[in-house]
Amino acid sequence: MQQHYTTRAERIMQRIQQLAAISEDVEGVTRTFGTPAFLSGRALVRSWLEAAGLATRVDGIGNLRARLLSANPAAKTFVLASHIDTVVNAGKFDGPLGVLMALDLLEQLIAKQVVLPFHIELIAFSDEEGVRFHTTYLGSKVVAGSFDHAWLTRPDAGGVTLAHALEIMEADAAQIAADAIPADDWLGYFEMHIEQGPVLWEREIPVALVTAIAGQMRVELTFRGMAGHAGTVPMAMRQDALCAAAEFVLIAEQFALTHGQGLVATVGKLSLSHAASNVIPGEVTCSLDLRSPDAAQLAAAYDALQTYTEAIAGQRNVALDWTLIQQTAPVDCAASLNDLLAEAIADAGHEVVALVSGAGHDAVPISAVAPATMMFIRCYKGISHNPLENVELADMAAALEVADRFLHLIRLQIPTR
Amino acid sequence: MQQHYTTRAERIMQRIQQLAAISEDVEGVTRTFGTPAFLSGRALVRSWLEAAGLATRVDGIGNLRARLLSANPAAKTFVLASHIDTVVNAGKFDGPLGVLMALDLLEQLIAKQVVLPFHIELIAFSDEEGVRFHTTYLGSKVVAGSFDHAWLTRPDAGGVTLAHALEIMEADAAQIAADAIPADDWLGYFEMHIEQGPVLWEREIPVALVTAIAGQMRVELTFRGMAGHAGTVPMAMRQDALCAAAEFVLIAEQFALTHGQGLVATVGKLSLSHAASNVIPGEVTCSLDLRSPDAAQLAAAYDALQTYTEAIAGQRNVALDWTLIQQTAPVDCAASLNDLLAEAIADAGHEVVALVSGAGHDAVPISAVAPATMMFIRCYKGISHNPLENVELADMAAALEVADRFLHLIRLQIPTR
Repeated sequence: MQQHYTTRAERIMQRIQQLAAISEDVEGVTRTFGTPAFLSGRALVRSWLEAAGLATRVDGIGNLRARLLSANPAAKTFVLASHIDTVVNAGKFDGPLGVLMALDLLEQLIAKQVVLPFHIELIAFSDEEGVRFHTTYLGSKVVAGSFDHAWLTRPDAGGVTLAHALEIMEADAAQIAADAIPADDWLGYFEMHIEQGPVLWEREIPVALVTAIAGQMRVELTFRGMAGHAGTVPMAMRQDALCAAAEFVLIAEQFALTHGQGLVATVGKLSLSHAASNVIPGEVTCSLDLRSPDAAQLAAAYDALQTYTEAIAGQRNVALDWTLIQQTAPVDCAASLNDLLAEAIADAGHEVVALVSGAGHDAVPISAVAPATMMFIRCYKGISHNPLENVELADMAAALEVADRFLHLIRLQIPTR
Repeated sequence: MQQHYTTRAERIMQRIQQLAAISEDVEGVTRTFGTPAFLSGRALVRSWLEAAGLATRVDGIGNLRARLLSANPAAKTFVLASHIDTVVNAGKFDGPLGVLMALDLLEQLIAKQVVLPFHIELIAFSDEEGVRFHTTYLGSKVVAGSFDHAWLTRPDAGGVTLAHALEIMEADAAQIAADAIPADDWLGYFEMHIEQGPVLWEREIPVALVTAIAGQMRVELTFRGMAGHAGTVPMAMRQDALCAAAEFVLIAEQFALTHGQGLVATVGKLSLSHAASNVIPGEVTCSLDLRSPDAAQLAAAYDALQTYTEAIAGQRNVALDWTLIQQTAPVDCAASLNDLLAEAIADAGHEVVALVSGAGHDAVPISAVAPATMMFIRCYKGISHNPLENVELADMAAALEVADRFLHLIRLQIPTR
């Protein structure tokens, strides 16, 4: 039995390598939305779907879609999906793993001639990362029916609009509205994805279910003190903007460490104006990235950190600019699906680990219209968006077994007529 | 009496303004060593010295020098000096104030036909800031006899060597060795200079005596943690290089605040590698500038901060590179001169404030061969190396009275034959 899953995982790994060889540049993997490399990659995936006997189509936003139909034409649709676009200098697994595992699941069903009580649609989303047009989830927003047609006029860095890019891709933008899966047709959505974090790696557990996808608030801060000579201004008379920023960095860390599981706070950017080793820093600008799966916790953390930071600035006689520049709400994954996924994980003999996704995924827009969840798969040291991204064969095999069991449990839930 | 000093201060202020109008660029004041602006500025100062009846000469390093001779040819020499070069985009007072106040003192002695028991030499040093050749105190090192002839081959940013620059300035480098004042000839050295710090400004006291010039240690540090996704790596599993650096910044500040008067610690530079708002910082490089007038305190602070910082890095599982890149020893000013200066300050009706200079001055190399001290003059908010640099007329007048009294007390110390 174990050999069965290993053999399947090996084939997926071969396909991952073949797809990764198609890239805009030589180092790492880069296949951003709509580029020739993206189109070649999608054509390769399409050829595998068709070889499995699936009829495929490309929709108005360039998503690759294929349906395995139920015997019941009125049945609902369960979607297995992930994305095939990448960031610049990406790894091989972020996105493609979920698509190629879903293909493998369909190949098994086809081989066993399983008669399903629901349709399955496999979707390879065309744009999740949002690298080219700085708007994420273009692919899944079309499927969810939340695509905003105003985005069609948005230009990329070279001045090519999304509408023009779609023309070049031979995708028919006029069809976008009709490409949404109607709300009543959804049975559910399931996305398999590498964790992109180190929890499973450290705990040596192959998979986890995802309970929520964190909401995010992004803040830009500037501390303005008084520059001065490092030798001549006594310590007690300084208005050191960097010392204020350092207190802020540590308060943000400490707050997130002590206020609940899902909350993370990161100061990823920090820069000094007119820095010199013998000058007391007069102005420091930095970022705050705050995430939580709990909307109330996120809002409370934001308010508390703003209050703490204002107090730090006040005590140090340093001016503070605090600007919220981005905000996305948290999304809860469907408990009904997670109950089945937990059962599948336990049945396969693994500890059931529930994780929050700190990164965004296509499950976010889909959650607005359908029960959706995700399964995370252990990746090497949690490294992602990096050529070092890797998944071990044994973990992929374990994930396949869990996914098989999960699909089976879903089938058992649907009364056959 | 007060009007007398105000009138003198007004003339000095006029000369300060005239000299400041000579600059390499339009904004601020820039007269770096050896440039046409520097030479024009020095020619202007020379014209004032000669108008006062002083014979002048330019020495081998470009210093402008003039002697007011004692009746006793065997008398020792008391030097009044400061520098006339500037940093880039400097203020008007850092350097020139000391030279032009010294000229005023000599003008008074000449006008009153005072017969001195010692020679006075007024020196306008050509290079204190070290902007052009990155070696400070070229002018005073020649006078102290500690000039290193190897520096003559050092190039500026444009590839012009110091030797070549001296040729262009028509300074005779062959004469440098003979330009030192012999050790036996020194009576003492007195430099008047703006404080460049805010103590006198805040306390509303016009002058201070300087007890010591701080030694300095400069360290470059790199913290190497692990970059990661700001959303997916749990707080407790992070190796955040910026959090480590922030702890270091605050430990350095706290240590200096709590370990004695003269110690100052400044992190003036801090930069992140591959910074992005959604990436946990993997590598942070920063500087530490540590100063104290007390060599033992400086060494102890250096050792303690290194130990603390290694502990921070260790606790956070972050690698630390700690490199000492510059070190200068502290210098004590001459207590014998400071006793007289304190008396002069008190006699003039001011509170006697004793300061440590955190910035370096020409008094540093001179201290190696002669009793030397400095008087600091209150400057606007302590601002220096900045076009906003300013000195109030009343403070300059007060400083002139103290300087007159100080010179008088020195004269009383020397037995006339």
